[in-house]
Amino acid sequence: MAITMYDLAGTDANRRFSPFCWRARMALAHKGLDVATIPWRFTEKDKLPAPNDGRVPVIVDDGQVIHDSSAIADYLEEKYADRPSLFPGSAAHGLTRFVQNWTETVLQAGLVQLVVLDIWKHIGPADQAYFRASREARFGATLEAVVKDREARLPGFRASLDPLRRTVQRQDYICGGAPAYADYVVFGAFQWARSISDFELVTPDDPVHAWRGRMLDLYDGLGRRSPGYGG
Amino acid sequence: MAITMYDLAGTDANRRFSPFCWRARMALAHKGLDVATIPWRFTEKDKLPAPNDGRVPVIVDDGQVIHDSSAIADYLEEKYADRPSLFPGSAAHGLTRFVQNWTETVLQAGLVQLVVLDIWKHIGPADQAYFRASREARFGATLEAVVKDREARLPGFRASLDPLRRTVQRQDYICGGAPAYADYVVFGAFQWARSISDFELVTPDDPVHAWRGRMLDLYDGLGRRSPGYGG
Repeated sequence: MAITMYDLAGTDANRRFSPFCWRARMALAHKGLDVATIPWRFTEKDKLPAPNDGRVPVIVDDGQVIHDSSAIADYLEEKYADRPSLFPGSAAHGLTRFVQNWTETVLQAGLVQLVVLDIWKHIGPADQAYFRASREARFGATLEAVVKDREARLPGFRASLDPLRRTVQRQDYICGGAPAYADYVVFGAFQWARSISDFELVTPDDPVHAWRGRMLDLYDGLGRRSPGYGG
Repeated sequence: MAITMYDLAGTDANRRFSPFCWRARMALAHKGLDVATIPWRFTEKDKLPAPNDGRVPVIVDDGQVIHDSSAIADYLEEKYADRPSLFPGSAAHGLTRFVQNWTETVLQAGLVQLVVLDIWKHIGPADQAYFRASREARFGATLEAVVKDREARLPGFRASLDPLRRTVQRQDYICGGAPAYADYVVFGAFQWARSISDFELVTPDDPVHAWRGRMLDLYDGLGRRSPGYGG
């Protein structure tokens, strides 16, 4: 029986834009596991199977419910240990944690301030009200004010990608010659942006752009086939 | 026969302060290899065995000369493959590259602007002239001007450590339960600062401080026994 995954969706049910859900989608594909996704909206908290923390991804595998993208990756790694590893070798899990912490404190923190208004434009009225209220409280500013000077902040954002840029300039993937979970964590952030925004985050001659292209091609173009902009 | 390593030193020949040399020292210790270090100064370029690029570390192992800290790590990993791995598992080398690129573009780039004048204070007159001229050309400012507002830049520097902080808050080392090369790369930067500066980079309650303490204790206190300030 296929695994079921609750996946954040926009007004268009096929538009999937959660960076954390993309981590799980790519991890499932890496393990070669079939998945049936269920589109889920911010305001449908009562539709999630228990236990959950009111967010996605949540997966159901053979009656077992697992929530939180990191917990899902660990679950898949242990349950499907005979399939390709998400953390190859004894140091990979620890090192991936560093990449994940960089992704969340630098990459996603920078990205959201460039595209947060674009997210709002792709979700339905009920979600829009929830999203605007919760994010404006977090930023202490309107969504419009957050992104107002995004062109001016773009050079700084691009410079913040240096650790990633220098890495994928010399090797195909963050994990080396083949992708693994750390690549999916970083890719999730870019796929989040790509799903809802036409704002050009990286120029076509940027090694990050080429790496993102390789990631979009993986698993029969799983990322590329998903509704989004550009690339 | 022990491996020989040319190691950057200050006026006090025992004060070893190159972040790149510390990577190599820790890698040699990780492999359990004996090393005889030779103190070397910035202006002694003609004293290095060939080939070299005018910088340290340079090691000589059984007549073979290897220069550049990354090349040394790769050489040790291959030549002494039966000893504990610096890159445990197929993804570790690639992931370590990411940590190294973060170290060089964020951590060391931030650090040097806090402690560059302290370096100058610990080297001899000939080295001081060389160091001042080359670094002032690079910064386009005097060493005094570079560090002038370092107190004001300290909160930003500490915030830039978030990816490291969050990682070592949950696990003992960057590589997980045991240290490996990525830990030595990041530690090299802190050991560089510790060797020549009493400027408090992290507060005692910072998880980064605790991780640095664990690193200083490794290999019979190899790092802690080296002349330096604090911790």
